[in-house]
Amino acid sequence: MYAALDIGGTKTIAALVDSSGQILVQEKFPTLTLDCEKHLSLCVESLHRLLSAARTSPASLSGLGVTLPGIVDYREGILLRAPYADWINVPVAALLRDKLGIERVRCENDVNACALGELYFGLGSRYTDFIWMTVSTGVGGACVSDGRLIRGAQGFAGEMGHLKVEFEKPARCPCGQTGCLEAHGSGTALNRLIEQTVSSLPSFADQFSSAGLPVSAASCAKLAREGNSVAREIFETTGHYLGRGMAYAVNLLNPQAIVVGGGVAASLDCLLPGIRSALSSDVFLPLQQVEVIATPLGYEAALLGAAVLVIDE
Amino acid sequence: MYAALDIGGTKTIAALVDSSGQILVQEKFPTLTLDCEKHLSLCVESLHRLLSAARTSPASLSGLGVTLPGIVDYREGILLRAPYADWINVPVAALLRDKLGIERVRCENDVNACALGELYFGLGSRYTDFIWMTVSTGVGGACVSDGRLIRGAQGFAGEMGHLKVEFEKPARCPCGQTGCLEAHGSGTALNRLIEQTVSSLPSFADQFSSAGLPVSAASCAKLAREGNSVAREIFETTGHYLGRGMAYAVNLLNPQAIVVGGGVAASLDCLLPGIRSALSSDVFLPLQQVEVIATPLGYEAALLGAAVLVIDE
Repeated sequence: MYAALDIGGTKTIAALVDSSGQILVQEKFPTLTLDCEKHLSLCVESLHRLLSAARTSPASLSGLGVTLPGIVDYREGILLRAPYADWINVPVAALLRDKLGIERVRCENDVNACALGELYFGLGSRYTDFIWMTVSTGVGGACVSDGRLIRGAQGFAGEMGHLKVEFEKPARCPCGQTGCLEAHGSGTALNRLIEQTVSSLPSFADQFSSAGLPVSAASCAKLAREGNSVAREIFETTGHYLGRGMAYAVNLLNPQAIVVGGGVAASLDCLLPGIRSALSSDVFLPLQQVEVIATPLGYEAALLGAAVLVIDE
Repeated sequence: MYAALDIGGTKTIAALVDSSGQILVQEKFPTLTLDCEKHLSLCVESLHRLLSAARTSPASLSGLGVTLPGIVDYREGILLRAPYADWINVPVAALLRDKLGIERVRCENDVNACALGELYFGLGSRYTDFIWMTVSTGVGGACVSDGRLIRGAQGFAGEMGHLKVEFEKPARCPCGQTGCLEAHGSGTALNRLIEQTVSSLPSFADQFSSAGLPVSAASCAKLAREGNSVAREIFETTGHYLGRGMAYAVNLLNPQAIVVGGGVAASLDCLLPGIRSALSSDVFLPLQQVEVIATPLGYEAALLGAAVLVIDE
């Protein structure tokens, strides 16, 4: 049996998983971003509760895999940086090893973990070469080639959110640069575009109010599916940026598929026309046979990937 | 002992190589682009001459590795497509196997072969993760991650020449798309920019004639090194496009280095200011520690890579 922790920016999931990727028991709780070490103690308490529920003990665990919401030194199990005050250079693996009393603890960033989850327990049964792309508040990526996760020299590969996709009117990105995919194709960017359009186009604002819908990406997707041309254009614009970023990865890595996860994946149908138009203009012709598909693992991709960190060794 | 053929668009090199990458004997001759199968016969004749010179026979060869100037199915050893009339779907490995009478024949495209040559007999001693970039008539690329060449689902990975780098005033590329790195950052594009500048700026044209220099990239590099600001700007523009393409690859793959080969690599010093400015604006900050370096293997990278195809199995 394996333990898994998916520590996200908002919530954390703790679980016990078997070697076939079955989630046996799980618990969800808010992430205590104010105090990283205290949060790790809460995680260990949660794992103890799950072990009790499963009538077993830490000694029966073959390992603990952990996903972290930031830049991770996966070799040493250190969280180098996350966007919360004291989440800097935290030796997460060592701390959890001590607190839980088990030897094998491995850490990885959340997006790499999603790709590993997909590789072992999702579309990896169909694809040896794929790009994973998380589209939610930000945009993250991970690349799988010939059945292996590409980690890069420092373990930072797959930074798709910082591929530059807009050079004429580049928006500022939280990373400090401009024109990044994260600044133009993320859920945040999509929401901003919806709000701007609602402000400048009263007839579009009316569509939401007359349908009793809040102004949100989900509502905008509903309008787009019903044929509203302004809503469709908003998704087309955002999809085009995502497709531009995907195209760079396709030209470099010749994958069979791009697997999309994260909250915005629920609107992938609305984004696809924009994505396909960018892939068609930007991907070298012999490489164009690439599928774009939502992950079948939903929100469990990262949690399963955490388990893979200790199942596959 | 291993045999290697580096079949380029203009010339072919045949050689015998030992397992440490020493080239024992070699012969150079023009590539007969009019007739692919006849050219392969010429290659076999050349190998026989080299074997005689080395006082040995095909039976002493452990294999033959071949680089080809086009799209290659490396698993089957078939040249799928090259820009010459009948070089389409040629079963190169099978033909050479029969003509030379040896069993192990492997084929690869020229740029992947360069990266393999670098990995085994060049900067691979220093880098596990690097991007190879050929800048000559066109632009080609290959990606090495964790000491392995990334081939992609169909074997077409590394198409750096078709990364899109210009969206405002995209030039047409021979591939049929627009804004490709090959259309803006190749030797061909550099020469075109030099000629355009010479035509529109008589004072710049005078710089060449008064120094007794032909209008060429090499002369322009000479002027740039002597401090001519127009010549410098030409290289900066071309370098910026190359850097933009490199930046996509760095964000995705987090390499330690970008290794540059091909004719234009001789002017890498002049291109570096433009390359560095693009890397600085486009590469995600934690990944910016990446070296840009000319290959130490020169024109032998592909030939050595051809040998690696049969040395490493």
